[in-house]
Amino acid sequence: MSEPNYSSRRSKLVRSFKSAGIDALLVSGESNVRYLTGFTGDSSWLYISRNTTILISDSRYQTQLQDECPDLDVDIRDARKPMTEAVAAIIRSASPRNPGFESSHLTFEQYQTLAAAVDPVTLAPTSGLTERLREIKDKWELQQIRDAVMFAERGFAVVRSSLTHSQTETEVRFLLEAAMRSFGATGPGFEPIVGVGPTAALPHAHAGSRQVSESPILLIDWGGETQSGYRSDLTRVLVTGKVTKQMRTVYETVLKAQQEAIKAIKPGALCKDVDAIARNIIADAGFGKYFGHGLGHGIGLDIHESTRMSPLSDQIFEPGMVITVEPGIYLAGKFGVRIEDDILVTRDGHEVLTSVPREFDDAVVEFLA
Amino acid sequence: MSEPNYSSRRSKLVRSFKSAGIDALLVSGESNVRYLTGFTGDSSWLYISRNTTILISDSRYQTQLQDECPDLDVDIRDARKPMTEAVAAIIRSASPRNPGFESSHLTFEQYQTLAAAVDPVTLAPTSGLTERLREIKDKWELQQIRDAVMFAERGFAVVRSSLTHSQTETEVRFLLEAAMRSFGATGPGFEPIVGVGPTAALPHAHAGSRQVSESPILLIDWGGETQSGYRSDLTRVLVTGKVTKQMRTVYETVLKAQQEAIKAIKPGALCKDVDAIARNIIADAGFGKYFGHGLGHGIGLDIHESTRMSPLSDQIFEPGMVITVEPGIYLAGKFGVRIEDDILVTRDGHEVLTSVPREFDDAVVEFLA
Repeated sequence: MSEPNYSSRRSKLVRSFKSAGIDALLVSGESNVRYLTGFTGDSSWLYISRNTTILISDSRYQTQLQDECPDLDVDIRDARKPMTEAVAAIIRSASPRNPGFESSHLTFEQYQTLAAAVDPVTLAPTSGLTERLREIKDKWELQQIRDAVMFAERGFAVVRSSLTHSQTETEVRFLLEAAMRSFGATGPGFEPIVGVGPTAALPHAHAGSRQVSESPILLIDWGGETQSGYRSDLTRVLVTGKVTKQMRTVYETVLKAQQEAIKAIKPGALCKDVDAIARNIIADAGFGKYFGHGLGHGIGLDIHESTRMSPLSDQIFEPGMVITVEPGIYLAGKFGVRIEDDILVTRDGHEVLTSVPREFDDAVVEFLA
Repeated sequence: MSEPNYSSRRSKLVRSFKSAGIDALLVSGESNVRYLTGFTGDSSWLYISRNTTILISDSRYQTQLQDECPDLDVDIRDARKPMTEAVAAIIRSASPRNPGFESSHLTFEQYQTLAAAVDPVTLAPTSGLTERLREIKDKWELQQIRDAVMFAERGFAVVRSSLTHSQTETEVRFLLEAAMRSFGATGPGFEPIVGVGPTAALPHAHAGSRQVSESPILLIDWGGETQSGYRSDLTRVLVTGKVTKQMRTVYETVLKAQQEAIKAIKPGALCKDVDAIARNIIADAGFGKYFGHGLGHGIGLDIHESTRMSPLSDQIFEPGMVITVEPGIYLAGKFGVRIEDDILVTRDGHEVLTSVPREFDDAVVEFLA
């Protein structure tokens, strides 16, 4: 699979300028810069217009930039010149009529400093121009995400097959990370959640010292990351002992909500409608107030990116989007169940990229002795 | 060591409001919220005034908040209500006369949305109010940092004692992380840099596939993180083979620059003067253009925090600050040397918290066979 065509990505971005009312853009979001240039460092901003593309960085990255972006114009500022001054100098010299900035990737303070430095030029806030491009994954990106899924699934198989009653959440987490790395992942992509019983009831728990034996419910939310920075994101619950009737009901409800939502994913469907399918199934089963987060999110260079599936979303599915579907029910102090898969929107529907079995019977772990 | 007194930290913050010209503050910086409340999650903002303290969060964190901040007023928004709306409702109801926000922790977009939602109340930008408090570490925090140093130093001892010619940078990195965790660290605190030869010449390199045998210079920049989120940050160069005269000169120059700079650290000294001591020694040795970054930074809940030591800094050392001192010389394509220690500013000078030997002879690794 050939490398991504960064120059073509930048051309697409420039073509979106007209409707955004700008003729140049300062890209300061780290993943956006990476997407548009291939540069994997931080603290570097991209100025881009029809005729000019300059990456403003500092001496720490000089050599790395020559390796990663040999064809890109680069402005290396030294330790004495703040980023905003270096950028202001470029804007003054390029003199665009209506330069934009990424309003969700400059802090208010950075904006104020930069605005003062380029005065009387005014800076126009823009939102999501590069993120919009990143929503639709190209072939190369899809292969990256498939690799990230593979790392995650092979890692999970190792953890599952070596699970014991005496392992702690933290031990399981570290084993999972090591296993994914052994298959080629650069890392877990995000801090894996490994939660036993009451810990599984915390949607954003940190792995701690609970042992697998403390509850029949073990929740694992994990993903892998590829060398090029693409991520996967899955959740499975393992059943490690005798469950209560309520646990079984919760599991089946979450699974049904997830499966029915996935079925509805296709080009043209509304994200909030798919969210509502899962939300209604959970509410109808009497657990509505125990599902407080959105149904899912885009994955790619960031672990949470556009597209968003929530009651607030006004987005529409398009071919090439890759999103998680992850309903959950959380009973505080007792247990939680979340089931999460990664879904590609295809031309005529969707493809589930993740294949770890998810039926209740599949979740039951048989222990020796 | 008793737990931190969050309420006293918040009182100190409120006492700084008058000179900042505000009577309430919206704290949105994640580490700032953690410092002021003990809450370890994300996506949660703190509204604080003389009479009101409310943490605005969402249902994912409901149980965790009861555990971590049982005495704090908490506003749990549901998935249908954006953060800015929830915060605006609180501001409208508390009706402060001049509420401030953290201008380096709200994006321009968040500011715009929030400003529109609270209109006609206007929001005043503030900068560094909580960060200023965080610069001066209390006893409990110092113990945390000492623990983080201990994790790092024990981990490094494992790596050093098990080093072989055939190990790759990545293998060394993963071993280092696993070793620190085995001593009680929750993680590495930041992605450790392990660089052989030319990779060591990249100040922000990622560990890759170079083998230790490829160069006599192996640079390791690493730290540990405690359960409570405090970090350490060290760099050492190991000499794993026969070095050139230039390598030796560069090593001794960096070490001299670092040691002379450390000697000058005491209350009342200017950060930029200490930076200049190291910078001048490196420049006088003819390597001025190969040291492009600042001399050091504060550490604590963040791996880079206020205080900053650079030619641009106008800060002054005060007792209780903990900062790194890390000059470096980077010869692109060949090798790099950086030596980094963590320094506590004491009432009458400083204390070096890190103790891994740093003389050239200490850096030489004897291999078996």
